Amino acid sequence: MMEEQYRKGSFTLPGEAGYEKLTLQLAEKWGADVIRDSDGTKLSSEIVDAGYRIYSTICIIREHNEFAIAHPETQQQTFLISERVLAVDSTVTIPLLDGYFTEQFELNTTSDAMKYWQVYDRTTEEEVPREKWSYADGKVTVCDATPWHSYTASFLCWRVWEEINMYNHTTNHWTSEHLRQLDPRHPAAWAFLKDWLEQWCVDNPQTNVIRLTSLFYNFVWIFGADMKHRNWFTDWASYDFTVSPAALDAFEKEYGYALTAEDFIHQGKLQVTHMPPSPAKRDYMDFIQRFVAEKAKELVDIIHRHGKQAYVFYDDSWVGMEPYGKYFSSVGFDGLIKCVFSGFECRLCAGADVPVHELRFHPYLFPVGLGGLPTFMEGGHPEKDAMDYWHHVRRALMRQCVDRIGLGGYLHLTEGFPEFVDCIEQMGIEFRKLKELHQHGAPCVIPCKVAVLHSWGSLRSWTLSGHFHETYMHPLIHINEALSGLPVDVSFVSFEDACSKGLQDFDVVINAGRTGDSWSGGDAWKNEALVSELTQFVFNGGTFIGVGEPSAVEGYATLFRMADVLGVDKDLGARVCHGKWAFDVTSMDGVRLCREALGAEKNLYLTDGKACVLAEENGIPQMTVHAFGHGYGIYMSDFKVSPESERMLLDLLLLRKTTEGRMQYVSDNPYVDVAYFPKDKALVASSVSSEEVETTVLTDAGEVQIKLMPHEMKICKL
Amino acid sequence: MMEEQYRKGSFTLPGEAGYEKLTLQLAEKWGADVIRDSDGTKLSSEIVDAGYRIYSTICIIREHNEFAIAHPETQQQTFLISERVLAVDSTVTIPLLDGYFTEQFELNTTSDAMKYWQVYDRTTEEEVPREKWSYADGKVTVCDATPWHSYTASFLCWRVWEEINMYNHTTNHWTSEHLRQLDPRHPAAWAFLKDWLEQWCVDNPQTNVIRLTSLFYNFVWIFGADMKHRNWFTDWASYDFTVSPAALDAFEKEYGYALTAEDFIHQGKLQVTHMPPSPAKRDYMDFIQRFVAEKAKELVDIIHRHGKQAYVFYDDSWVGMEPYGKYFSSVGFDGLIKCVFSGFECRLCAGADVPVHELRFHPYLFPVGLGGLPTFMEGGHPEKDAMDYWHHVRRALMRQCVDRIGLGGYLHLTEGFPEFVDCIEQMGIEFRKLKELHQHGAPCVIPCKVAVLHSWGSLRSWTLSGHFHETYMHPLIHINEALSGLPVDVSFVSFEDACSKGLQDFDVVINAGRTGDSWSGGDAWKNEALVSELTQFVFNGGTFIGVGEPSAVEGYATLFRMADVLGVDKDLGARVCHGKWAFDVTSMDGVRLCREALGAEKNLYLTDGKACVLAEENGIPQMTVHAFGHGYGIYMSDFKVSPESERMLLDLLLLRKTTEGRMQYVSDNPYVDVAYFPKDKALVASSVSSEEVETTVLTDAGEVQIKLMPHEMKICKL
Repeated sequence: MMEEQYRKGSFTLPGEAGYEKLTLQLAEKWGADVIRDSDGTKLSSEIVDAGYRIYSTICIIREHNEFAIAHPETQQQTFLISERVLAVDSTVTIPLLDGYFTEQFELNTTSDAMKYWQVYDRTTEEEVPREKWSYADGKVTVCDATPWHSYTASFLCWRVWEEINMYNHTTNHWTSEHLRQLDPRHPAAWAFLKDWLEQWCVDNPQTNVIRLTSLFYNFVWIFGADMKHRNWFTDWASYDFTVSPAALDAFEKEYGYALTAEDFIHQGKLQVTHMPPSPAKRDYMDFIQRFVAEKAKELVDIIHRHGKQAYVFYDDSWVGMEPYGKYFSSVGFDGLIKCVFSGFECRLCAGADVPVHELRFHPYLFPVGLGGLPTFMEGGHPEKDAMDYWHHVRRALMRQCVDRIGLGGYLHLTEGFPEFVDCIEQMGIEFRKLKELHQHGAPCVIPCKVAVLHSWGSLRSWTLSGHFHETYMHPLIHINEALSGLPVDVSFVSFEDACSKGLQDFDVVINAGRTGDSWSGGDAWKNEALVSELTQFVFNGGTFIGVGEPSAVEGYATLFRMADVLGVDKDLGARVCHGKWAFDVTSMDGVRLCREALGAEKNLYLTDGKACVLAEENGIPQMTVHAFGHGYGIYMSDFKVSPESERMLLDLLLLRKTTEGRMQYVSDNPYVDVAYFPKDKALVASSVSSEEVETTVLTDAGEVQIKLMPHEMKICKL
Repeated sequence: MMEEQYRKGSFTLPGEAGYEKLTLQLAEKWGADVIRDSDGTKLSSEIVDAGYRIYSTICIIREHNEFAIAHPETQQQTFLISERVLAVDSTVTIPLLDGYFTEQFELNTTSDAMKYWQVYDRTTEEEVPREKWSYADGKVTVCDATPWHSYTASFLCWRVWEEINMYNHTTNHWTSEHLRQLDPRHPAAWAFLKDWLEQWCVDNPQTNVIRLTSLFYNFVWIFGADMKHRNWFTDWASYDFTVSPAALDAFEKEYGYALTAEDFIHQGKLQVTHMPPSPAKRDYMDFIQRFVAEKAKELVDIIHRHGKQAYVFYDDSWVGMEPYGKYFSSVGFDGLIKCVFSGFECRLCAGADVPVHELRFHPYLFPVGLGGLPTFMEGGHPEKDAMDYWHHVRRALMRQCVDRIGLGGYLHLTEGFPEFVDCIEQMGIEFRKLKELHQHGAPCVIPCKVAVLHSWGSLRSWTLSGHFHETYMHPLIHINEALSGLPVDVSFVSFEDACSKGLQDFDVVINAGRTGDSWSGGDAWKNEALVSELTQFVFNGGTFIGVGEPSAVEGYATLFRMADVLGVDKDLGARVCHGKWAFDVTSMDGVRLCREALGAEKNLYLTDGKACVLAEENGIPQMTVHAFGHGYGIYMSDFKVSPESERMLLDLLLLRKTTEGRMQYVSDNPYVDVAYFPKDKALVASSVSSEEVETTVLTDAGEVQIKLMPHEMKICKL
């Protein structure tokens, strides 16, 4: 049958020793051309020799416990901060590791580490001079303390349990030896790792692709001792776990200034990705990115020398290896693998500068999911989870395709879940059809260039810091997810780039965040050049969409620096006695309001009373459209992604274009996404509904009506 | 009957010419001993000669239109700020009065005023040099402007319509001539006003008490041109309307530094009472307070020389005359009259250092109330309004009494509202009974000294800025209202006093406000001495109650400087990746939770996981009690006053005392307030319920059970 050509290829199957028959059977059903191992699984020769290409997973810094125990000084480290301890008299004793999971951390009390320790009076935020404190038995004692002030100590620790292994142990009840991790910055460790990889390549001739999981430094993941506070800190894009006295010494030598513990500890807040980076943090990130790229290139060179390819999995120990970073392409990876729950993750992978882009689908074949709920066990519905993620990923794939898809985990767990097995088969077919269309030519894009404006710019294209469920509280991830499937051109622009290159190439600029965070921008808005550029942009006909607390910074006449453009501002209290403009809620031609997407924020007020208020809550405007010069300022108090809000966002993006007549190749049903591939004259429509739906699409050939079964994707040749 | 002695005296009736019979009839029914006129009414000789004492209302700066028109330079002024105007090229023209109600304001373009005008680039917050702008035809034109920046002009205006008169015209459809107002700082005006008062005293021998309404400068009340923005700004305690070139010149001469327009305009935010005052504002307030007191004393001396008494009405043109200010008692007023909706206003009046304290009850005898709803007209229920206010005022009177009560307005409006007439009669009786008890000796107070800690301290005892319905959005007014009827000792303490005098005399300290406002404190919390003092206070056994965003200031490890005492803090985004302590909601012995009083705030988190969480919302703690040293830190995300929350607050105040056994002379029913007057062995119980209620009170004589009819007050002799 005609579908046959879409039943095979571009699919990576996780094999499992002991389940050889199942492995080969599912490889056939899902059309796999590659079999891989997973964290905790190994392939048997029966699988390896079955004629498939083979991926082998290597977490390079892990699984060397013997070496790590023999050379504990080669292990990775981090800064930690003690609890705040109140001085009730002039001496205060600070226990250092209280509150931390001591299976993860051990104090580094070597002299090269101790020179980076710091003690702070947190009441005054002054550092306590070194001669006023001493260390013994896991505690720091401060003399000449000021009574009723609080003190902390910041110190270096060895990280003695690799965090992904720690997670798997604590989540999946693993009982094997705790794996340690080596720091490639240590010369002895680096020599060991290179030799080890060399030997591994020799020992594993059957492997075609080494799947690096990932490189050297894990994202920051600190466990607490108390089960009520087990998750002490997690930030998927922070650099704290790259630190060591050697790194700090090298940094000082290169940059001419020294970083301190406080640069990382930051009053106990740490340096979270969601807050704008300090200049020192930017320097340090660049320093680490170069180090990671250089070392990674050495590994890739070894792999290539052995005739194998090097793919990298962009999760876990990925830090310093951002695919949109300056040094990524210099490494020479052959492929980038990204695990995906969401559309934005698909776009993140698809847009990277690397030969092969591969998605690893969720759910992972594990008993429980990342959120801790049952998946492949009683109570789990993996086929529902898979379809939910596919709804998000498919609409992104309709805009920009990847080269491969696949799964990970324990294949035998799929037994007893035949609907899941069928579901994956169907996804493979749909994927291959989309891939073919993209290979023939790109889909139509509405001529609307969107810039998402934030502190990180292109470095954090599409993602904020980790998955959607880790960042759902930030409106920008909802915006990014919505954009990932819209037929517009999307760029991620930093404030620096906005100022230096201007915004004239864009039609719409979006800024979405909370006062002071990376996504809103914080102090970046003190730069009058930024405010002027964006003001001019809108005045000359651009659209600015502000969400939450956009362009917010204190010290000016308005909290939102773009308040006069938006026609709305937020009061922090100084305007509590100002009368507010009365307004009526109105609708707006061309904007399909999705009230559920918006918030119920307080203290918003109209600046000049001229904004059109599309939604309110308790008399407070929640969504406004404000004509400004030749353009529009649009404000939304929040944005939650949904099929309806994706459609509303598209309407807003196109607000200045709707006078040009009805848009072609867009769906009139929020539950249906549409993409048109002119080369093949193929109109793709896909449904995210669990019911039958219909949509009407305006095409060059007139109106086309399409009916879709639940979850169906259909390709209509025009 | 026994009640007869309580039927007459201490009551001020508003008489009305043309309704002489009604006036005398109601004087009899309500037991008046004084008849007064009101704004807009005059007494006829029939009333004046009826044997009552006579109050005559004088608004000294008003009703001199002939003089004001002849000498327009003697009128009062204010600073205003233009709208922000965007520069699209290098010239920008700023219309000055656009958006303002031009019946209220006229530009002052005299050279002594123009020297105080300022033009600002609001994009950079830099002042535009004088040589770069010019004025003509109501507009300022800026040259060499920076395109895409916004500009404002700040300028002086004459205020050509006295604001209370303006309010009455616009609210009550008055059609009489617009009254102007004179500035007593102008020597010609001051000479005129003194002569006028002298002559008035000669012409009005029948008047016993001159009721000054109030003194010179109205609270700030700026009207907008557009009916959708008619209320441009109102702050009952701001000083902007005291300003004039003469005042500014005199200030500079005395203080050695000049104030600028920007000191008042403050980026368009103005200097609202709810925000902490700058040092310059504090200087200016003291400067004005001295001026007002000196001038007021001259008036009082004239009044006394004519054998009359001088009472002052503490509303309207009261600015600079705070009863708890440094200079109030130096004026020599014979009485203070306060209009009251609430208990806190009663305490404010009752505690002032002046011989006679008089309350003017609400509703005012006007067709509509301050909120704009019908009162003495169709649809109004003045007896319900009166009883509602009386519930609040009576419980305050049970703690601290005043000398007199009364009404104001148009007496004839009471016709057709017999229930109101009866209601006032009953209130008079209850008031006189309470007054008698207080005269015999003070009621019992629980030995619990409470300090309400904020930027203003005793200067703003009890009130924030105006009435409850104007300040309801501030949790502190709810706290003050609750405290006004609780049997504890209450002080209002500034941050300066807390540091210089210490907190050791108190049992409980309360700080309630929003980040950066006067009530929370803002930058005052950067003073480590304040943090240390309060930390020590709690550690040594005190209770700290923080409400909303207490002790909040940015720049430290925690937003709440008292976070370690409270066990709870608020995250502004830097801790979004920190795991939060899990908790169970529990109850606490001795605390009757009133969940409705609390908020539903986001981003609160437990600091050390040890606080007892009494209420939560969406997993976020909303009320916590945290043992700290020998004391308690108590946090509430909000506080809304109600009978139940008043009881909860009392429980919290006494948390450290509940181990001492059950409290005597407190009610176990939130709808019943109780006060015990030991001298008369009188237990007073009053109900705020519209149903029959019961309470049991522990007394020296054992348990006493009291049943009360709706709204009833009962006195039980023990």
